[in-house]
Amino acid sequence: MKFKDQHILSTNQFDKNDLLAFFEVVKKMEKVVEEAVVGGKQAKLCEGKILATLFYEPSTRTRFSFETAMLRLGGRVISNFDMLKTSSAVKSETLYDTGKVISQMADVIAMRHPEVGSVEKLAKGSDVPVINAGDGIGEHPTQALLDLYTIWKNKGTVSGLTIGMIGDLKNGRVPHSQCSLLKHFGCKFIFVSPEGLKMPEEIVTELKAYGCEVSETEDLAEAIDDMDVIGMTRIQRERFANDEEYGKYAGSYVLDAELMAVAKTDAIVLHPLPRVDEISDEVDSDPRAKYFEQVQNGVCVRMALFCDVFGIAV
Amino acid sequence: MKFKDQHILSTNQFDKNDLLAFFEVVKKMEKVVEEAVVGGKQAKLCEGKILATLFYEPSTRTRFSFETAMLRLGGRVISNFDMLKTSSAVKSETLYDTGKVISQMADVIAMRHPEVGSVEKLAKGSDVPVINAGDGIGEHPTQALLDLYTIWKNKGTVSGLTIGMIGDLKNGRVPHSQCSLLKHFGCKFIFVSPEGLKMPEEIVTELKAYGCEVSETEDLAEAIDDMDVIGMTRIQRERFANDEEYGKYAGSYVLDAELMAVAKTDAIVLHPLPRVDEISDEVDSDPRAKYFEQVQNGVCVRMALFCDVFGIAV
Amino acid sequence: MKFKDQHILSTNQFDKNDLLAFFEVVKKMEKVVEEAVVGGKQAKLCEGKILATLFYEPSTRTRFSFETAMLRLGGRVISNFDMLKTSSAVKSETLYDTGKVISQMADVIAMRHPEVGSVEKLAKGSDVPVINAGDGIGEHPTQALLDLYTIWKNKGTVSGLTIGMIGDLKNGRVPHSQCSLLKHFGCKFIFVSPEGLKMPEEIVTELKAYGCEVSETEDLAEAIDDMDVIGMTRIQRERFANDEEYGKYAGSYVLDAELMAVAKTDAIVLHPLPRVDEISDEVDSDPRAKYFEQVQNGVCVRMALFCDVFGIAV
Repeated sequence: MKFKDQHILSTNQFDKNDLLAFFEVVKKMEKVVEEAVVGGKQAKLCEGKILATLFYEPSTRTRFSFETAMLRLGGRVISNFDMLKTSSAVKSETLYDTGKVISQMADVIAMRHPEVGSVEKLAKGSDVPVINAGDGIGEHPTQALLDLYTIWKNKGTVSGLTIGMIGDLKNGRVPHSQCSLLKHFGCKFIFVSPEGLKMPEEIVTELKAYGCEVSETEDLAEAIDDMDVIGMTRIQRERFANDEEYGKYAGSYVLDAELMAVAKTDAIVLHPLPRVDEISDEVDSDPRAKYFEQVQNGVCVRMALFCDVFGIAV
Repeated sequence: MKFKDQHILSTNQFDKNDLLAFFEVVKKMEKVVEEAVVGGKQAKLCEGKILATLFYEPSTRTRFSFETAMLRLGGRVISNFDMLKTSSAVKSETLYDTGKVISQMADVIAMRHPEVGSVEKLAKGSDVPVINAGDGIGEHPTQALLDLYTIWKNKGTVSGLTIGMIGDLKNGRVPHSQCSLLKHFGCKFIFVSPEGLKMPEEIVTELKAYGCEVSETEDLAEAIDDMDVIGMTRIQRERFANDEEYGKYAGSYVLDAELMAVAKTDAIVLHPLPRVDEISDEVDSDPRAKYFEQVQNGVCVRMALFCDVFGIAV
Repeated sequence: MKFKDQHILSTNQFDKNDLLAFFEVVKKMEKVVEEAVVGGKQAKLCEGKILATLFYEPSTRTRFSFETAMLRLGGRVISNFDMLKTSSAVKSETLYDTGKVISQMADVIAMRHPEVGSVEKLAKGSDVPVINAGDGIGEHPTQALLDLYTIWKNKGTVSGLTIGMIGDLKNGRVPHSQCSLLKHFGCKFIFVSPEGLKMPEEIVTELKAYGCEVSETEDLAEAIDDMDVIGMTRIQRERFANDEEYGKYAGSYVLDAELMAVAKTDAIVLHPLPRVDEISDEVDSDPRAKYFEQVQNGVCVRMALFCDVFGIAV
């Protein structure tokens, strides 16, 4: 309960010990969900609590995950998933005031916004904990936490694993956030991207400063057999000069049965979803595919965070 | 509990025995609602369960009906009633993936979509039961179920009744769905429509194949006194070549006190709502008007379905 | 419980005794909220009840306040906060029919609409109590009730207080509604506004008819030291002929530390929020600033109303 009464704005708030302690709480949350789904037993850990979801940008899966997390814990939800268009205050009111006002009515706030730093602005005004559900190309800490939890759960550890990240590593919020947590675990990184979409130099430098090994390549087929974690991400057409350039890479970064045949038998495949075509449907039935399990883990991660900021022992 | 862990996509999943057994469960749900509304007693049949409503097309009354049904049973709800505009995934993600993802967070899904077959696509991906809340001009099984339940409840039986259907029988999803259930009960049908908006021939043929009598007319006044059930539906201006054509029929298909004076004293009037002007306000106070009661019955029908797909004995 | 099974459409429904009795109930609601927020104890006063929020115009804070109120009481919520755009029935269906239909699924309705009188139209059709959450420039009774409660709670009484109202008093719904309640308490009013935005003559006349003193001025600095209640409201640029005219008043109606230094030491500052720049941030930390506390009181006021229309003794 390190984060009692605190905002959760950034992955930087978590060090290695925090993460390991947190994972144990998430694991307990899986039990709570199971008892509800299988046993029809409603948990009461957050009874009496109200979550407000304020989404200034649509993201049904992230919002549902926060809301389901609160409901599974016995709390309740008030929700606006279209703040920019349906909140009369949007134009005139400061985010500080919005935070102050909403926090008089709810016990915790989950907020998404297209602009970097906006969640922090609202948090400054809020009298209750605010959890960052993504602020533009900035942070999305709960996504990174669920990625790491999925690794920890499936591999038994995070330390020393070889982590592959594939796709647009220059612009992707997801791989950047993952690195800011994984750096604590002495991992070996294999970054697979087109030349123009490489992982930013400052991140590579930071990983090395933390003692991690980093290698970079453009060739997924050549590198995949070393990976314990195959972290796929979208690669977007608009990042390339023309179709020819795009096609050159897009095709080679499609994870299919052929590539999976080369991968380690105990590797795991992650993807933040939604996918476009980076992962063939045929991989879905491969037991190493964990991208739908990640969604379940995301609910449990958010449940654990709610308990943490409320100071509820589990 | 024939439908435990199954999707409810079509009226074709129900035969006569299913319907009769189902009606008994719906009846019990009326008790549950009454105990909540009058006695302030919250049922717990679906405690711990979460419904996700995914509406790709607005329908406040249908969505509210599903949500109220789940809340009355002690379950909880996550909701997106504007999927097409507020779901970032809509453009890129397949309905299969959306179904897979949402079903990791909810225990049942109610979905409406403007395109025929789309609910089935999402259901294919879903790990939890999906209930069709209307897919374009395709199916809307819960509406047909509540129509039949309203008949059964008020008339004591469905078998052998004379069912009038009035309006645009060519394009109307409601009368088509009703026929697909009523065919099991040996009813006599009187179809009242303009020549160009007649009930499709294949439906008439099927009804006859099931042993039902069918007669067709353009004249409501002449036919109404034979009907046990007066099934009104909207008749839309845009189906006609010009105002003159439209006016010819629109006027004669307005149910008013004068027509009700000719109808059987124990007839019942149904309408899926919203009405435009097919039923005069003066009919609202006629005890034979059951179109607002249908809304209540719709909640109970959906409650019974939830219990059924969850395998909850009532 | 004067309002059992009644609609709450207007401040005119409340006389002095109603208000004083009502305030005592609101006070008890503060305890209920405290027990939930601090003690994690879920109240069950409205267990089994369902609130439908129908917002034909966005207002996140008002909607959240109604929804939180119902959730704090143990009830549940179905919600549409974008009725004009997402309700297919909006164009064709009368508000009477909408009221009739929704009231078959919910136990109470809170409705906001941009047009005066529309809430009353829906209420006519509804079989359950409808609470007006604002109908255009018409009524917004729950806002006025929370304003008065905030005065009563902080000053110990409303009777005989000197009430300042500052800003656009011609067009402001808030000061008009406040007057319709405050007139019962023999208050002294100081109206501060530009010449063209004065309180309508009929309201001034009515206040005097009820025995209240009224004075009017354009100068806030000169009048503020007499006020027990400093009621700030927005003053909108578009009400003025040009920027010069606007600037003349806008600037002098900004409440800042300098003005607060002149105000009574036991005065209180109210604002319906959102504010634009009528109140400097520096005033937020002044203990006399009660505009964020008003938000909390608004939840309790709505809780008390729910109990009242349901006839629930507290």
